[in-house]
Amino acid sequence: MRFIGNPSSFHVVKSGTNSQARAGELLTPHAVVPTPVFIPVGSQATIKTLTPEELSAIGISMVLANAYHLYLRPGIPVIEKMGGLHRFMAWNGAILTDSGGYQLFSLAPLSRVSDEGITFRSHIDGSQHFITPELATQFQETLGADIIMVLDECPASDASFEKVKAAMDRTHQWALRCQRAHQSNNRALYAIVQGGVFAELRRKSAHYLTSLGFSGYAIGGLSLGEPKEVTQAMISETVALLPKDKPRYLMGVGSPEDIIEAVSKGIDIFDSALPTRIARNGALFTRLGRVNISNSIYSRTQQPLDPDCACYTCQTFSAAYLHHLFRCDELLAYRLTTIHNLSFLSNLMHEARVAILDNTFSSFKDSFLKSYKPTNEQVRLEQKQKWLKTRSK
Amino acid sequence: MRFIGNPSSFHVVKSGTNSQARAGELLTPHAVVPTPVFIPVGSQATIKTLTPEELSAIGISMVLANAYHLYLRPGIPVIEKMGGLHRFMAWNGAILTDSGGYQLFSLAPLSRVSDEGITFRSHIDGSQHFITPELATQFQETLGADIIMVLDECPASDASFEKVKAAMDRTHQWALRCQRAHQSNNRALYAIVQGGVFAELRRKSAHYLTSLGFSGYAIGGLSLGEPKEVTQAMISETVALLPKDKPRYLMGVGSPEDIIEAVSKGIDIFDSALPTRIARNGALFTRLGRVNISNSIYSRTQQPLDPDCACYTCQTFSAAYLHHLFRCDELLAYRLTTIHNLSFLSNLMHEARVAILDNTFSSFKDSFLKSYKPTNEQVRLEQKQKWLKTRSK
Repeated sequence: MRFIGNPSSFHVVKSGTNSQARAGELLTPHAVVPTPVFIPVGSQATIKTLTPEELSAIGISMVLANAYHLYLRPGIPVIEKMGGLHRFMAWNGAILTDSGGYQLFSLAPLSRVSDEGITFRSHIDGSQHFITPELATQFQETLGADIIMVLDECPASDASFEKVKAAMDRTHQWALRCQRAHQSNNRALYAIVQGGVFAELRRKSAHYLTSLGFSGYAIGGLSLGEPKEVTQAMISETVALLPKDKPRYLMGVGSPEDIIEAVSKGIDIFDSALPTRIARNGALFTRLGRVNISNSIYSRTQQPLDPDCACYTCQTFSAAYLHHLFRCDELLAYRLTTIHNLSFLSNLMHEARVAILDNTFSSFKDSFLKSYKPTNEQVRLEQKQKWLKTRSK
Repeated sequence: MRFIGNPSSFHVVKSGTNSQARAGELLTPHAVVPTPVFIPVGSQATIKTLTPEELSAIGISMVLANAYHLYLRPGIPVIEKMGGLHRFMAWNGAILTDSGGYQLFSLAPLSRVSDEGITFRSHIDGSQHFITPELATQFQETLGADIIMVLDECPASDASFEKVKAAMDRTHQWALRCQRAHQSNNRALYAIVQGGVFAELRRKSAHYLTSLGFSGYAIGGLSLGEPKEVTQAMISETVALLPKDKPRYLMGVGSPEDIIEAVSKGIDIFDSALPTRIARNGALFTRLGRVNISNSIYSRTQQPLDPDCACYTCQTFSAAYLHHLFRCDELLAYRLTTIHNLSFLSNLMHEARVAILDNTFSSFKDSFLKSYKPTNEQVRLEQKQKWLKTRSK
């Protein structure tokens, strides 16, 4: 392991003047990660379709893996025997592992939660398991991630105030237990602010977790089907109470317009499976918004999908070829679109950072949002609900 | 286009002393192709899962695409508009296109053949089409392949003598018509010897086609479910009558043991979808035979699948990681195994060539076949029949 920095090392290089946006640097044992940063999701120790070399070429410095998935397959002891997660997936950059709290509630059937922990059945083979905050911490330390997350309880977006409050209280108790169980100085432990769509709870959660002192603070339980205005309001409420000198991580947000909005509110880290998942469905980011390569308008387009894009896909292939690969369900299609969407986000974050450093972030944001046409809100919510339903099956 | 040689340029660099094996060089407009050579199948203008750069890195100098598939999707005019097949798929090496004769009989439902040509329905949308030897030639010339194939009639492996003879006679007439329709000097036209499992017909076909004078000669209609001894006997009968100074191409043979056997009989070129297809099912070539990475014996193997292999996959990942990817149906799995199997064959052909040049091919062959355990013949035939059945649906 190249030890690059103290695990809790984060410093703000520059703060915005007209916004809360900040450019920072996250020092992890495996990489210096410039922020704001988007980290792609590789739940099962692989960013779907891509090799580690391709990720590096795209400019990715940190990826996310999921302790819940890896616990079930191949199992934590297997990865330990293989020399840890970095070696297992041949990735030399930074890794953040999610504890799996969200997956335990959304994926595992028949989960039962108590103060002690979560009893759940594997979504793969139905086998029964029990996980505690202490075990979640230990698993992630064994995996060897650079940043690990507390175990949290993540209620549905339409849960009642009482339910959300109970989940938040439990998340707080678990955060404390994770902190006590946390052993390795090489693995920074981040807390997760919960509180659903209730500003009062969000404030309470931020206040309590901050009082415990973590290396970083995530905002969980958002972007789960609630309207975008509500998401943004909850982010503002929470960020206002988080310490300025610690990284802030908005979990599960990956659409360009939401990211840019949240950067302006002071978020440093983002993750989401959305950019890679929609890529495999042919949906590609451009500066004007999402387009779908399956659309027949591309069947004879000699130009790349995005002539201004410097990614491998756009530099090498015509839109017509991409369209052909999708029409034929060819596996290369999913690779090429994944490369494009991750490159788009990687570039966008880089440009946002440069704008913050140049004191021009506000105009960068306005100009980006003016030309980027987001997916229709109604369509977006329907898609999200559909996707959440599929996952809970 | 880099014009490297006259399209019909082929020369034998060295002939074996104890076998018919020969090392040669095929000069095509896009690449000098050392023979014996295995060319991977990219029917739809893509070698499934791989980029052109990866193919080059593996040592691939020529790929196969299929005029039947490309005629249906995206259509020949689309590829013409895109600047030809090389540019469309961003491949700078050599391309051989198959006319689609085999696919017209195996894939297209309700094909009807007359002396004039083949009427068929698309296996994709049921639309009706009519193809003649002249059209098949013109399509391939428009695609811009380096080597193009005559349209042939390919009967089933259990067809009667009369049926096979009629198909052969028609193939001969069509070969003549393809030759007359063939216009571009940049595209070498190869004939296809038919005759099924009947030595008499194989000899007749080789004799007749040779008398017409083609740039190369393929052997078609083999490896379609007949016993391996019969395949090998037909190869011997045919090769004996083919001109020594022209390339010989055995269509549809891709298992290492069959390739080495056929090299010893004087075959120069091989193609088959088998190595890439079985890779996507987890079956990997090693010097000891095929193994399947899904086997639980690999679940904790820290070593690469084949520690002696220099391919990207074996140099980068443990067998346990590959096993994990397969178990999780991760798309990266199919890429990594495809890279391995194509690297294996690329290396094998290189070693065979070096052995021929060194006058040690016979002992190379013996030693290879002694350690390489082929798939059980019974299992192989059952798999083949099953696969052929799937295709004809």
